[in-house]
Amino acid sequence: MKELTPLTFMEAVNGLQKSAVARAAIELDVFTHIARGCNTVESVANATQASIKGVRVLLDALTVLRLLHKQDNRYQLTDESALFLDRQSPRYMGDSVQFALSPFIVHAFLNFTQAVRIGGHAVTSAGTVEAEHEVWVAYAQAMLPIAMPQAVATAELAGRVTSILDIAAGHGMFGIQILLRNPEARCVAIDWPAVLEFATANAAQAGVAGRWQGLPGDAFVADPGQGFDAVLLPNFLHHFSAEDCIAMLCRMHAAMVPQGRLFVVEMIPNDNRVTPSAPAWFATMMLASTPAGDAYTLPEYTAMLQESGFTAPSLHPVPGSARSIMVSRKQPANELW
Amino acid sequence: MKELTPLTFMEAVNGLQKSAVARAAIELDVFTHIARGCNTVESVANATQASIKGVRVLLDALTVLRLLHKQDNRYQLTDESALFLDRQSPRYMGDSVQFALSPFIVHAFLNFTQAVRIGGHAVTSAGTVEAEHEVWVAYAQAMLPIAMPQAVATAELAGRVTSILDIAAGHGMFGIQILLRNPEARCVAIDWPAVLEFATANAAQAGVAGRWQGLPGDAFVADPGQGFDAVLLPNFLHHFSAEDCIAMLCRMHAAMVPQGRLFVVEMIPNDNRVTPSAPAWFATMMLASTPAGDAYTLPEYTAMLQESGFTAPSLHPVPGSARSIMVSRKQPANELW
Repeated sequence: MKELTPLTFMEAVNGLQKSAVARAAIELDVFTHIARGCNTVESVANATQASIKGVRVLLDALTVLRLLHKQDNRYQLTDESALFLDRQSPRYMGDSVQFALSPFIVHAFLNFTQAVRIGGHAVTSAGTVEAEHEVWVAYAQAMLPIAMPQAVATAELAGRVTSILDIAAGHGMFGIQILLRNPEARCVAIDWPAVLEFATANAAQAGVAGRWQGLPGDAFVADPGQGFDAVLLPNFLHHFSAEDCIAMLCRMHAAMVPQGRLFVVEMIPNDNRVTPSAPAWFATMMLASTPAGDAYTLPEYTAMLQESGFTAPSLHPVPGSARSIMVSRKQPANELW
Repeated sequence: MKELTPLTFMEAVNGLQKSAVARAAIELDVFTHIARGCNTVESVANATQASIKGVRVLLDALTVLRLLHKQDNRYQLTDESALFLDRQSPRYMGDSVQFALSPFIVHAFLNFTQAVRIGGHAVTSAGTVEAEHEVWVAYAQAMLPIAMPQAVATAELAGRVTSILDIAAGHGMFGIQILLRNPEARCVAIDWPAVLEFATANAAQAGVAGRWQGLPGDAFVADPGQGFDAVLLPNFLHHFSAEDCIAMLCRMHAAMVPQGRLFVVEMIPNDNRVTPSAPAWFATMMLASTPAGDAYTLPEYTAMLQESGFTAPSLHPVPGSARSIMVSRKQPANELW
């Protein structure tokens, strides 16, 4: 019989060390330096102004994590680190550590046992869903490269659209991508004022500023008007209780034209809640960082949508992403009677 | 071509979350409750006085980590968690989180980027090698179940011995296991006073108190006397610079009889420093938590030992452990001439 070891457990316990190594690599920008030809400990240490010993330990640890290759004391990027972790790459997403390991999120996970006890975020009263929480500016900036494939997939699903409402727009890219494919369409984007500054810049850069309007405020309160034929809820509902999700969905229902379509982008685990690993694991982030958010399953989202006057959603996985897009239609009034 | 995703990087970044889940599981003792027959979210929540929702997220996350099985909404221990994480098991080692995620170690890894910059522990001046550092009491207690197979393997290698010196003895078990196999032998054990209290209790419990003597103090300063035929350096040298290791080895040399044997227990990566993963990774712990410690390779230890008057070591892996035992002899005086 194979000797049992506590390796699975120790791997989990030592996870913090992996976070630390990943963050140090981004903060010192070692992938970018290696991409530029620094391929030894000495040359990376010189480029980063860090110690020889520290860089040696860091590069070897990154090799153990399979984020670098090492041969004959020379280091090379893997295909993944070349595409996502070299700051010169258009798909660079290393700054996601600024959100994933922000002081707020670190503090939330250092108090995770208490979150399990009380069933939600244990440090401040409202967690990340507190009004104008500072974390969302970093999030919008850091997540843009990760969100882009989701935004493109959503825009392709949306097809022809005239009037878009983008809820908690963040970087704004979900609405902007639809505007780019619909030259006559207009978009109203709701988010906290500090976040909207970043979205406004992105809209201008995309050349759609004249058809894009930011509406600063709380998505549960702000009045966007009516007549939208596409409402976007990207990575939003998971932060809230089912009751709050239904309240939001009913508000969206009222803002939409008959047969208008709702696009909900989410991490959706299977009904067993333990596969696939990324959306299943996402429940820990919601427990740690929000009072009542969750990684809801498809039946749970379906129930919320139907209770709010929408059809059962069609489900569309986003290629190369752990997220899916749910598309629902506003039910015609006569079906509600 | 397969679509590239940043999964390897995100797994590393999210490591903190795994640490948090593992710690919560131990602090709420969920493995022990499941072993006792609580196999649903509700029954574990009831037994731990924690929320239904929090426990659901925790148990599902432990399933994703492969520390539990889940079927039909019932949870079961894996073979590994039954052996190592059920508090009723004689090989329970869940309390290792008290050391691995102690406030000191967490703080050290939250400052890892700075450790890379300066080449060593970045928070306090001396890290864990500070005099009488509080972390060592928790360490000695938490690591005893993990160290036991190493202590048994060392005692079996030692065979017949009469006079043992156990350096930074911790729980004391390395010396105690040799005493149990050598009814006439005596042991002197050096460690900080607070740690020795735990070792003293272990010696008494093993029935060897009359042949076991604690010597409180700094292993680099305390005078243990002379004439030892076995000196134990378990999990000690990695905390220090090569220069300090050699200074310590020269002190040991002076305390030993001719042909006396030195037993050094260590995490030893291959010369490439990136395999096997556990000892290779161990360098990050030394960088984060000590001013000058390291995961030294076999050639590096061999050079230190030979410079201090010992033979090149024989290497003995400990079954079911990432550690190895190096055995060296004190060189006869005439070979030094």
